[in-house]
Amino acid sequence: MKWLKIPTLIAAALVFGLASPALAQEAADAQPVFDAAATAGEWAYAIDNMFLMFCAVLVLFMQAGFALVESGFNSAKNTVNILFKNLMDLSIGMVLYFIIGYGLMYPGDGNGFLAFGQFGIGGNGADVAEAGALTLQVDWLFQVAFAATAATIVSGAVAGRLKFSAYLVYSAVLTAIIYPISGYWKWGGGWLDQMGFYDFAGSLVVHACGGFAALAGAIVLGPRIGRFTKEGKAKAMPGHSLPLATLGVFILLIGWFGFNPGSQLAIVGKGNTEAVMLIAVNTLLAAGAGAVLAMVATWIMHKKPDLTMAANGVLAGLVGITANCDGVTNVEAIIIGAIAGVLVVAGVKLLDKLKIDDPVGAFPVHGLCGVWGGIATALFGEYSDGYGNWIAQITGSIAIPLWAFATMFILFTILKAVGMLRVSKEEELRGLDIGEHGEEAYNGFQIFTTN
Amino acid sequence: MKWLKIPTLIAAALVFGLASPALAQEAADAQPVFDAAATAGEWAYAIDNMFLMFCAVLVLFMQAGFALVESGFNSAKNTVNILFKNLMDLSIGMVLYFIIGYGLMYPGDGNGFLAFGQFGIGGNGADVAEAGALTLQVDWLFQVAFAATAATIVSGAVAGRLKFSAYLVYSAVLTAIIYPISGYWKWGGGWLDQMGFYDFAGSLVVHACGGFAALAGAIVLGPRIGRFTKEGKAKAMPGHSLPLATLGVFILLIGWFGFNPGSQLAIVGKGNTEAVMLIAVNTLLAAGAGAVLAMVATWIMHKKPDLTMAANGVLAGLVGITANCDGVTNVEAIIIGAIAGVLVVAGVKLLDKLKIDDPVGAFPVHGLCGVWGGIATALFGEYSDGYGNWIAQITGSIAIPLWAFATMFILFTILKAVGMLRVSKEEELRGLDIGEHGEEAYNGFQIFTTN
Amino acid sequence: MKWLKIPTLIAAALVFGLASPALAQEAADAQPVFDAAATAGEWAYAIDNMFLMFCAVLVLFMQAGFALVESGFNSAKNTVNILFKNLMDLSIGMVLYFIIGYGLMYPGDGNGFLAFGQFGIGGNGADVAEAGALTLQVDWLFQVAFAATAATIVSGAVAGRLKFSAYLVYSAVLTAIIYPISGYWKWGGGWLDQMGFYDFAGSLVVHACGGFAALAGAIVLGPRIGRFTKEGKAKAMPGHSLPLATLGVFILLIGWFGFNPGSQLAIVGKGNTEAVMLIAVNTLLAAGAGAVLAMVATWIMHKKPDLTMAANGVLAGLVGITANCDGVTNVEAIIIGAIAGVLVVAGVKLLDKLKIDDPVGAFPVHGLCGVWGGIATALFGEYSDGYGNWIAQITGSIAIPLWAFATMFILFTILKAVGMLRVSKEEELRGLDIGEHGEEAYNGFQIFTTN
Repeated sequence: MKWLKIPTLIAAALVFGLASPALAQEAADAQPVFDAAATAGEWAYAIDNMFLMFCAVLVLFMQAGFALVESGFNSAKNTVNILFKNLMDLSIGMVLYFIIGYGLMYPGDGNGFLAFGQFGIGGNGADVAEAGALTLQVDWLFQVAFAATAATIVSGAVAGRLKFSAYLVYSAVLTAIIYPISGYWKWGGGWLDQMGFYDFAGSLVVHACGGFAALAGAIVLGPRIGRFTKEGKAKAMPGHSLPLATLGVFILLIGWFGFNPGSQLAIVGKGNTEAVMLIAVNTLLAAGAGAVLAMVATWIMHKKPDLTMAANGVLAGLVGITANCDGVTNVEAIIIGAIAGVLVVAGVKLLDKLKIDDPVGAFPVHGLCGVWGGIATALFGEYSDGYGNWIAQITGSIAIPLWAFATMFILFTILKAVGMLRVSKEEELRGLDIGEHGEEAYNGFQIFTTN
Repeated sequence: MKWLKIPTLIAAALVFGLASPALAQEAADAQPVFDAAATAGEWAYAIDNMFLMFCAVLVLFMQAGFALVESGFNSAKNTVNILFKNLMDLSIGMVLYFIIGYGLMYPGDGNGFLAFGQFGIGGNGADVAEAGALTLQVDWLFQVAFAATAATIVSGAVAGRLKFSAYLVYSAVLTAIIYPISGYWKWGGGWLDQMGFYDFAGSLVVHACGGFAALAGAIVLGPRIGRFTKEGKAKAMPGHSLPLATLGVFILLIGWFGFNPGSQLAIVGKGNTEAVMLIAVNTLLAAGAGAVLAMVATWIMHKKPDLTMAANGVLAGLVGITANCDGVTNVEAIIIGAIAGVLVVAGVKLLDKLKIDDPVGAFPVHGLCGVWGGIATALFGEYSDGYGNWIAQITGSIAIPLWAFATMFILFTILKAVGMLRVSKEEELRGLDIGEHGEEAYNGFQIFTTN
Repeated sequence: MKWLKIPTLIAAALVFGLASPALAQEAADAQPVFDAAATAGEWAYAIDNMFLMFCAVLVLFMQAGFALVESGFNSAKNTVNILFKNLMDLSIGMVLYFIIGYGLMYPGDGNGFLAFGQFGIGGNGADVAEAGALTLQVDWLFQVAFAATAATIVSGAVAGRLKFSAYLVYSAVLTAIIYPISGYWKWGGGWLDQMGFYDFAGSLVVHACGGFAALAGAIVLGPRIGRFTKEGKAKAMPGHSLPLATLGVFILLIGWFGFNPGSQLAIVGKGNTEAVMLIAVNTLLAAGAGAVLAMVATWIMHKKPDLTMAANGVLAGLVGITANCDGVTNVEAIIIGAIAGVLVVAGVKLLDKLKIDDPVGAFPVHGLCGVWGGIATALFGEYSDGYGNWIAQITGSIAIPLWAFATMFILFTILKAVGMLRVSKEEELRGLDIGEHGEEAYNGFQIFTTN
C-alpha cells in the first residue's frame, strides 16, 4: 500500500481547502491517504493480541511443569499414570472448556451467581481493531490455559491410588463446570467482583480452586498404603526423580511470566506497559523469596537444606503473589513471597499431623498460599478503586475454596460410593502404571518400589 | 528525536499555505516533522519481525521435543545415539541450509521444478521498513527451523540400527537438497503452488516429507532384531523413558504455536492478527481432540488406555491441522484432529501388519497424518482464491510424499550397497551408544536391555 | 477513546485557519484529537518493553538449562546438590541483585571503577513513554537474568566436593558484588567502556566472569577423589544422564535467543529491527558450527564421535559469538563458532594436562571461549565508532577474567582456611545428596556409584 505522506496531504488539502472545507474533506476521502488513527488501532490490536498469545503459550507450557513436578515427586511405579492424567486433563479440558466452560465463565451478563453465554467461542472476526481490543480467539486461548492449570493441580494430590477413569470424570467436571462458575463470580463480573473482591491473576480463582479440590480428593481417597504408621506417624515416601521435579519447577516459573503479566490483558499504553513490567519483576522476586525462606525453614527444622521444600517454596511464592502482583511494590512482593515460603512448610507439617496424604503438597502450595494471596491483597498494595477491601478479600478467600472443596468432596464421595474411586490394594502396591495402563515408565531399569 | 506534533504542523502549514501550497510543502520538508506514515512502516516492521523471531525460537525448541520423544520411546542403550543425531541434524542442517538449501527453496523465480537463487541469505539490510516486510535474516531463521524439523522426523524411525555416519549423510542430503526442492514447489512458488495446492504451514511440505523419508529408511533398513517373531508377529519393544517422551510431546505442542501461527508471516493488520489467533486456537483444539480419540481408540482395542498412543494422538492432531489451520473453524479443527487421532492408531497397526519397524511411529504421525492434513484442506475450510481445490490437494498429497520417499529410498539403498547403512548384529544387540560413541546415556544405572 | 480522524482535523483546522493560525492551534488543542506523535511513543514503548520482557524470560529459562547440563554431566549421587545450587543461586541472587547488585552495576555515574547508585530498582513509573525507552523494571529483569547466568556457571565446575553452604556464600558474593563491579566497567559506562572495549552481550562480562570464577573454584578445591591416578593420568568420570544434559543444551540454545537479541535493548526502528534479526541468525549459525567442529575434532582424536563434546561445542559457539553477534556477517559467525568448537575440545584436554578437575567443562566453555569472543571482536566485524579496537579488546579480555579469578580465588581460599570449603572424604564418596541434603535424586533406582 502506498500512503501519501501527511505533509503532502496537508498541502493538497490546503489547495482545495481555500475553496471549501467540504471539498477538502472529499479530496481526503477520495485518496488512499494514510489514516493514522485507523492504523493506530490496527497496530495496537496486533501488539496486544500477540502479547496475549505468547503469554498463553507460556501458561500452556506450565502443563509440562506440573506433569514433571507431580511425577518426579511420586514413586516411579505411578509415573505413567500421572503423566497421562496431566496430558488428558488438558486435552479433555480444552474440548469441554470450548464447548461449555467458556460460556459459563464469561456469559457477558447474568445474575452474578450462575449464567451461560453461548457454546463455543462466539462469533469470530466480529472484533474492532483498536487498542485494548482482544480477539475472542486469543482470549479463549489464554482462559483455557488457566482452566487447565486449575484442573491439573489436583493430579499430584490424588496420585498413587485414584483410578484413571475417576480422574477423567473429575477433570471434566472441574474444567467444564466448577471452575467456570466460581471464575464467573470474579472474572466474569459476578457477585465477588461486584463486592470489590480483587484477584488479579488467580491466587484464588485458579490456584485455591485447584488446591481445595485437591484437598477434597486427598481426604475422600485416604492416604496411600504405608503413608502413616499404625501409631499415626507420617512416613516420607520420597519422589523418584528430583531432576524431573526441579525441571518442572523451573518450567512453572517460566510459565508464570505468561500467567501474571498476561493477566493485564493488554500491553499498549503507558499504564499497561508499566504494569506488565512491574508484574513480571514482582513475580520473580516473590518466587526467589519463597525459595529462600522455605530453605531456611527446613534447614532449621531438619538440620539439612531440603531441595523438595525449596522447590515448593518457589511455587508458594508464585501462588502468593498472583492475586496482587500488579498493585504491590517490589519490596512488598519479596515480603509476600517470603511469608508464602514459610507457609508452605507449615502446611506440609499440618497435613502430616492431620494424616492427610497429599503426595506433592498441592494443597499447601496452591490451596494455602492461594488463600494467602487473597489476604495479602488486603494487607498490601493499591488496586483499582473499590477493590481489595478486607471484607471482599475475606469473603472471596472463603467462598471460592469452599465452593471447590464442597463440590469436589461430593463428587469424589459419589465416585467412592459407586466403587469408581480407588484402585485395589494389589494394584496400588504394584503401581498404577502396570495396573491401569499396562505400561512401565522406565522399561529396562532396575527399580525397587520401596513406596 | 523531537517531533513536532501534528497540530503545530498544521498551524505552521496554514501560515505558509495561505501564501502558496508549494511553500507549505517546502516548510514541512524543511522541519523534523513527525512523519506518521514512515514511522508506521518502521513499527509494523518491528512488530512483524519480532513476531516471526519468537515463532522461530518456538519452532527451534521443537528440536528438543523430537530428541526427547524419540529417545524416550526407544531403548536406553540407543539413547546417546538418538540425542546425538538430533543435535547434529540441526547443526549440520543449519549450515547447509544456509549455504545452499535456502537458495534452492526460495530462488525468487525459476521453472517451477528446480531453480537456485543464491548462496547464503542474500543481501542484509536491503529491506524496506514497512508493514508486512520481513528481514531476510528472520525469514531464514524461521525457514531453517522448518528444514530441521523435516530432517529430524526420520531420526526416530531408523533408531537402533542405522549407522551414525549414514544418518549424517542422510540429514545433509535432505536438508540441503531434497526438502528445499519440494519446498520450492509449494512455498517457493513452484508448480504445486501454481496449480492451487494449499499447505499453510507444512502438513505435506514439512511433515509428510519427513514422514515418507522415514518410511523409506525403515523399509530399506529392515526391522530391529527381535521386533517381529519368526511367525511374523509384532513384538512390542517399549521405550525406556515415558517421562522424557511425554515432556517431548508437551514441548512439541508448545513449539507448534510458533510453527502454525508463525506461518502467517505477519501479525500487523486486522486480517493478520485475527488469522494468527484463529490458527493458535485451532492448533490447540486439534491436538486435544487427537489425544482424546487416540486414547479412546486404544482403550477400546487394548482394554487399557495407553499413554504412548495418546501422546502420538497429540502429535497426529497437530500434523493434521497444520495445512489448514488458517481456513477452518474451531469445530472443524476438532474434527480434523479427532480423525488424525484415530488414523495414527490405525497407522501403527498397519505398519505392524506390513512388518515395517518404525520405533516411534514417525510415519503414522508425520507421513499419514501429513497426507490427511492435505486432504482435509480440500474437505474443510476456505482459503485464498483458487487454493485448496481437490485436484491440487490430491496432486500435492501424492507428489511430495513420492518425492521424499523415492529419493530417500535411493539414497538409503546406495548406502546399504556400500555397506554404510546398518550397524553389525553385535553392535545392535549391545546398543549403539557403546558401539558408535563409546558412551552410556545413564552411567551407573542398572539397566536390563531387554530390547 | 475516540480520535478524530486526521482529514477531519485538517478540514476543521482549515475553517478556523482561514481566520487565524492561532485559532487553528487553539481548536486543535481543545479537541480530543489523535496525537500521532504521543501515541507513537506509547506504542514503541510497549513494543520495546514487551520485546525485552520475553527476552528476559528466555534468559531465565537458561537456568533450567544449566541445572540439567551440570547435573546430567555429573554423577547421580550429586544430583540433588547440583540442582539445589542452581535453584538457590537464582533465588538468593535475585534478592541480592535487587538490593545492591543493580545499584553497583548501573550507578548512573561514578569514577569508572567502583560506584553505587541506589538500593533496589529506583523510582517506578518515572519513565517517559517513547521509542527506545525501557521501564527500569524490565531492565532489572533482563539484568538479573544475566547476573544469575554468571553465577550459575560455577556450579558445575565445583560439583561433587564443594559444601552447599560454601556455594551459597560464593554465589551471594559473586551476584551482589563481583559481577556487578566488572559489569559496571563495561555496561555501566566504566573504564573499559570508556577505552572502547566492546562486548555486546557478555562473552566476557558474563561468561568469562563466571568461567574464570569456576577455574578459581576448581583449583582451590582440587580434583574429586579418583579423578586423576597416582601417575597423574586423567580418568573420565562420566555423567549420569546424557538425556538431561542434552535437553539442557537445547534449552540453553533457546535461551540464548533472549540473551543475544535482547541485548540490543530495543527492536523498534529499522536499525534495531535488523540488528536483532542479524543477531538471532548469527547466534544460531555459531552454535551449529561449534557443534560440527567439536564433533569432528573428537571424532579424529578418539575415533568415535562424542555427544558430550558436541554438546559443549554448541555452548562454545554460543559463548564465542556473544560479544560480537551484532557486528559480524553470517559467514564470520560460522567461523567464530567453528573456532570456538575446536577451542573447547583443546581446553578440556588442557585442564586434564594441568590436573584441574572441572566436571562439566565450565572453564573451557565459558572462560576460554569467552576470551575468544572478546578477541574475535577485534578480529571480525564492525561496531559503533571507536569500539572494538585491539588494545581495548585485549585489555578487557584480561581485566575481567583476572578480576573474577583473583577475587574468587581469595574467597575460596578463605573458605578453605576456615574449613568451610570441602566436604569430608566419606561424604564425597557416598555423594553429596545424602551427606548435604539427606535426599536421593532417584529414589528406588538401583545405581552403582562408580564415580
